Amino acid sequence: MEKFRFLTAGESHGKCLTAIIEGLPSGLEIDIDFINSELSRRQQGYGRGERMKIENDTVEITSGVRFGKTLGSPVTLVVKNRDFESWQKIMSVAPEDITDDRAFSTYRPGHADYAGSVKYNQTDLRNVLERSSARKTAVEVAVGAVAKLLLKELGIAGSSQVTQIGSACCPAEFKDEVEVMRGKGDTVGGKFVVTYKNLPVGLGSYVHWDRGIDGKLAQAVMSIPAVKVVEIGTNPLGYQGSNYHDEIFAKDGEITRKTNNAGGVEGGMTNGQDLVVSGVMKPIPTMKAPLKTVDANTKEETEAHFERSDVCAVEACSVVAEARVAWVLADEILLKYGGDSIEELKKNFNN
Amino acid sequence: MEKFRFLTAGESHGKCLTAIIEGLPSGLEIDIDFINSELSRRQQGYGRGERMKIENDTVEITSGVRFGKTLGSPVTLVVKNRDFESWQKIMSVAPEDITDDRAFSTYRPGHADYAGSVKYNQTDLRNVLERSSARKTAVEVAVGAVAKLLLKELGIAGSSQVTQIGSACCPAEFKDEVEVMRGKGDTVGGKFVVTYKNLPVGLGSYVHWDRGIDGKLAQAVMSIPAVKVVEIGTNPLGYQGSNYHDEIFAKDGEITRKTNNAGGVEGGMTNGQDLVVSGVMKPIPTMKAPLKTVDANTKEETEAHFERSDVCAVEACSVVAEARVAWVLADEILLKYGGDSIEELKKNFNN
Amino acid sequence: MEKFRFLTAGESHGKCLTAIIEGLPSGLEIDIDFINSELSRRQQGYGRGERMKIENDTVEITSGVRFGKTLGSPVTLVVKNRDFESWQKIMSVAPEDITDDRAFSTYRPGHADYAGSVKYNQTDLRNVLERSSARKTAVEVAVGAVAKLLLKELGIAGSSQVTQIGSACCPAEFKDEVEVMRGKGDTVGGKFVVTYKNLPVGLGSYVHWDRGIDGKLAQAVMSIPAVKVVEIGTNPLGYQGSNYHDEIFAKDGEITRKTNNAGGVEGGMTNGQDLVVSGVMKPIPTMKAPLKTVDANTKEETEAHFERSDVCAVEACSVVAEARVAWVLADEILLKYGGDSIEELKKNFNN
Amino acid sequence: MEKFRFLTAGESHGKCLTAIIEGLPSGLEIDIDFINSELSRRQQGYGRGERMKIENDTVEITSGVRFGKTLGSPVTLVVKNRDFESWQKIMSVAPEDITDDRAFSTYRPGHADYAGSVKYNQTDLRNVLERSSARKTAVEVAVGAVAKLLLKELGIAGSSQVTQIGSACCPAEFKDEVEVMRGKGDTVGGKFVVTYKNLPVGLGSYVHWDRGIDGKLAQAVMSIPAVKVVEIGTNPLGYQGSNYHDEIFAKDGEITRKTNNAGGVEGGMTNGQDLVVSGVMKPIPTMKAPLKTVDANTKEETEAHFERSDVCAVEACSVVAEARVAWVLADEILLKYGGDSIEELKKNFNN
Repeated sequence: MEKFRFLTAGESHGKCLTAIIEGLPSGLEIDIDFINSELSRRQQGYGRGERMKIENDTVEITSGVRFGKTLGSPVTLVVKNRDFESWQKIMSVAPEDITDDRAFSTYRPGHADYAGSVKYNQTDLRNVLERSSARKTAVEVAVGAVAKLLLKELGIAGSSQVTQIGSACCPAEFKDEVEVMRGKGDTVGGKFVVTYKNLPVGLGSYVHWDRGIDGKLAQAVMSIPAVKVVEIGTNPLGYQGSNYHDEIFAKDGEITRKTNNAGGVEGGMTNGQDLVVSGVMKPIPTMKAPLKTVDANTKEETEAHFERSDVCAVEACSVVAEARVAWVLADEILLKYGGDSIEELKKNFNN
Repeated sequence: MEKFRFLTAGESHGKCLTAIIEGLPSGLEIDIDFINSELSRRQQGYGRGERMKIENDTVEITSGVRFGKTLGSPVTLVVKNRDFESWQKIMSVAPEDITDDRAFSTYRPGHADYAGSVKYNQTDLRNVLERSSARKTAVEVAVGAVAKLLLKELGIAGSSQVTQIGSACCPAEFKDEVEVMRGKGDTVGGKFVVTYKNLPVGLGSYVHWDRGIDGKLAQAVMSIPAVKVVEIGTNPLGYQGSNYHDEIFAKDGEITRKTNNAGGVEGGMTNGQDLVVSGVMKPIPTMKAPLKTVDANTKEETEAHFERSDVCAVEACSVVAEARVAWVLADEILLKYGGDSIEELKKNFNN
Repeated sequence: MEKFRFLTAGESHGKCLTAIIEGLPSGLEIDIDFINSELSRRQQGYGRGERMKIENDTVEITSGVRFGKTLGSPVTLVVKNRDFESWQKIMSVAPEDITDDRAFSTYRPGHADYAGSVKYNQTDLRNVLERSSARKTAVEVAVGAVAKLLLKELGIAGSSQVTQIGSACCPAEFKDEVEVMRGKGDTVGGKFVVTYKNLPVGLGSYVHWDRGIDGKLAQAVMSIPAVKVVEIGTNPLGYQGSNYHDEIFAKDGEITRKTNNAGGVEGGMTNGQDLVVSGVMKPIPTMKAPLKTVDANTKEETEAHFERSDVCAVEACSVVAEARVAWVLADEILLKYGGDSIEELKKNFNN
Repeated sequence: MEKFRFLTAGESHGKCLTAIIEGLPSGLEIDIDFINSELSRRQQGYGRGERMKIENDTVEITSGVRFGKTLGSPVTLVVKNRDFESWQKIMSVAPEDITDDRAFSTYRPGHADYAGSVKYNQTDLRNVLERSSARKTAVEVAVGAVAKLLLKELGIAGSSQVTQIGSACCPAEFKDEVEVMRGKGDTVGGKFVVTYKNLPVGLGSYVHWDRGIDGKLAQAVMSIPAVKVVEIGTNPLGYQGSNYHDEIFAKDGEITRKTNNAGGVEGGMTNGQDLVVSGVMKPIPTMKAPLKTVDANTKEETEAHFERSDVCAVEACSVVAEARVAWVLADEILLKYGGDSIEELKKNFNN
């Protein structure tokens, strides 16, 4: 992110998650209800555990917005962790509060525990879990909601859908699939698709590898915890040149297409078709039926620590992906059209 | 790329391709024969057309290396375009040479032509084709070869393989698949896998979304022209938590695994297992049997311009992906271990 | 800042200032009392007005630190604005609170008002003042205090001093100079010097223009509101080669110098001598005796709006500069030595 | 540099200097004669030695420009080192050419030799000298010339002047001052000022420390080899608030000023006045009358190695500074106005 810059912070059971966004134009209307509704969407979906019910996230804005509009200065978003009170001592900043309550040392396979504890020289794996947890995606969705408010000003809108859960490819089957897995104490992943409509032609570029919008989208989606596959448009396996590429037609002097296998990206640029980005999420690695693992202290084999109880979080993941795609698009829009105020941006955009 | 910084330049039929790499430690041995052998690997594979035979790329180094070792200063790599002589006038820098020889105006579907000409306000689509061509990946492979020389000093080695071409999933079938397509005037894509061995634990991070090595790898591979899918490890579709995650075992006090579905990445970090990144390349969009399209000037429907004659370039694509993964790893190594000379880097690495 | 990344946020009369620092190694002890003492230093010095007494800044840490040590995850610093209660309505985020109470439209010369209101398309100049105010340097000092804690682990320590106020070059005269100006309703600037000791040789580089530590230091100090001059070492005007350059001597096989006109920087790198960076601050532009200006709405000539009452803030400025130099040094240390934990950093540093 | 990205490369006696510029809009006319005339300006001025006469630099463009206009793809600039033939063996890339001809081991005070050899683990100080030499500024001036061509399209023009050499503050005295020093075998530095006219209001920003144009300018100028002081506008020492700040007047509804002590920058932004940036260059550290120093190998005291023979290079330095200010302005223009083609940029700029 070059113009739509931001940093996020916050542990899973810390006081709050925080994000600072730097680079927004002034004059952008910030609809807090919309941000909260996006936070709420992240908490939906079959297969979520008990914690989601506690959370009911809402955002507080502590800088960069006055009387409902951005000032051009950095915007701070704060999302409280609602169960912080019961974790206050365990997650305390103060050295004197040190405790090994809730410490653990059994590496959870599929998580950051092992590599994270080696990297950051930690023995209490909670010091890894707290930031590597997917909890941090809540404030990422809030950042994405702000990006979506920017895009909305230009008529650009996004959505996302779950297209597969476990072996179920039809939405009517999703609930059953989840319940079967819950019964087994197992977990499932799945596939989702993010779509943005009404994009201008020419976001991204072919002139240098790191300016391709396809690569930026792939980074944004692949770095979501648990995503292992990213696709743009239709997976080309099984196609030939003659039936994969989207032929070009003219209608009233305008370019049209009858297909969109490219997913709206040719040559690393948006081509005016719908942008279509898919991802595959792996099954949640924390299961009631625990995996074999090793204890960090004793180096003896044991079973994995169990903390969360979601069976499936593909829907949440799709909302996070939709938010992250919005980051990329907002950044590309700001790079291409410039503009320090929303009025100037719109003028350049509509030029 | 934050420490292993570079820019590449060059048109497909211009004088040369150039790259400048900034951020290498001093004292690194630069084996030009190795770089040339990597360039040669990019030119191999079933399905390539005539141009590959002309090219036989070699690199010249014009800065940053003295007596076979890096100085710590920026390294310039130059790869000549061997057919430049016949294109000299057509690709001239001089305003007085202006000509519409080799100009074209029919958008090629699947290429950058349409979006690129809108973005850069071009009517001669050659002004888009020349940089959007995959030709630029030659110097990218040279940059990757330098990155691989750095990795080799630390015992890290990479390789790549084509795992599917069109509908053929077995190497013995690849040649036939290509010849069938050549016969039809059609093209095919395929799938490849890149593997790096002997990586340290903890490259990348979970602490901030843009520090995950999975996202960086996905950007590097997805932004290769024609790649539409990136996977890290095993595609989780069809798996459950209980059979996807790589259980952890202890052997002589060391962590071991029996599976590697994670592809060597957990929590956005390398976990000491082999790094496994796959990609799917779409069929080459330029075919003897042309696609329907539109003429940029007349806006009338017509057939696509035909310039290259490859039927399949998946093997070249896998070599480019292998090079790009080396970029990411070199950058992560330099970020994690620091070091201004190769001696200092190795000391920190082995600490 | 490439490894020691951070963003700051917050308006002068908003709820709070916030900073997120990303890139700290784990295991670094965070002494909150030290951060608060740095915040307090910023509020000292002759010539400050009433607001300083209200403020008495303290920091709260809401992420990235547990039991007194960094986790490796982003650290959030929050500094409350103590007079927020009386400004709550005026600085409200909510659209329904809109008011023109405390709005103003007379450009203050020497401030961001004119250019800022053009850039961000604002008519109420408070929307510019609130972020362009020097208030934001409070949280910058907190970020610098964290950087100083990192440097302290490596034995590196910084300090700063005011060397001139107005026409007074001797500390004994500073108070008088300020009182004379206060009596006139005028303001004065001055000069300060920042010194860091015990730096390693070779921070920064000559290999590329943007890696010179001199340039990075100059950016960090010149972008402090009101600084107009930056010097590294001794101003060379009036010197000749023969008496400016610091000759090199050997003592017990170690390099020594008898002078330090270079201010510890040769070839864009630290050379092992004390780092010496000076800056000149202009007089505060808000004066009781107002400057002539223009009203943004009427375009008629008038007198400048008066909000603050400091006569001189050079001492605060020197503390901010000292903090910013710490940012640069922390970043350079992390780039050169790598290390994900403080233990790994120290091992590489002492290697 | 975020949008006007570039890397430069090349040793002082290597084959050539190279730069790649990425991020230029398409359609920009590249006047090679203009670039060459800027290169020639860098070689002028009293006090230069013999090498300047050999060099007579010219640029070759090997990518990114066709028929006199940019394509939007990266532009490669190559400036040959005209005396390379006699250095070919000494600066060879090939390991088999290794020689200690022209090697040296006496640290030159005021140069990168000592810190550079420690940092990059070099014993032959030529391995430091070759890149730390001011020779690299030739291609930096070429990059600046391209930036100036972009600025020229928007009506923005820059110039620079030497305002002091040694103790001489009047141009009529400069030649004498230099000759006196030449006679003594000594060197002198001096002061220069760079001015750009016709800038838009609002380049840079106050919203985050690293967006201030003052800081960016200071980095660009301070990182020029030998520059030790940077000033924006008038040095405020000796001024009071009442006589330093530039009062604002209205004339026919337009903002005017009668003074420009701010040097065109308020609140980290251009304010529509002329941009005025000064720098002070130290005396060249290589003198016929050598400085005392130490031999890197023996650690014994000796006298400094002498390679170049300039007495004064302030005029060259001013041209380099003028070029570097153009980099910053071009980057800021592209960030603020966006635009992928020069036509789109101009439309947004004039909006």
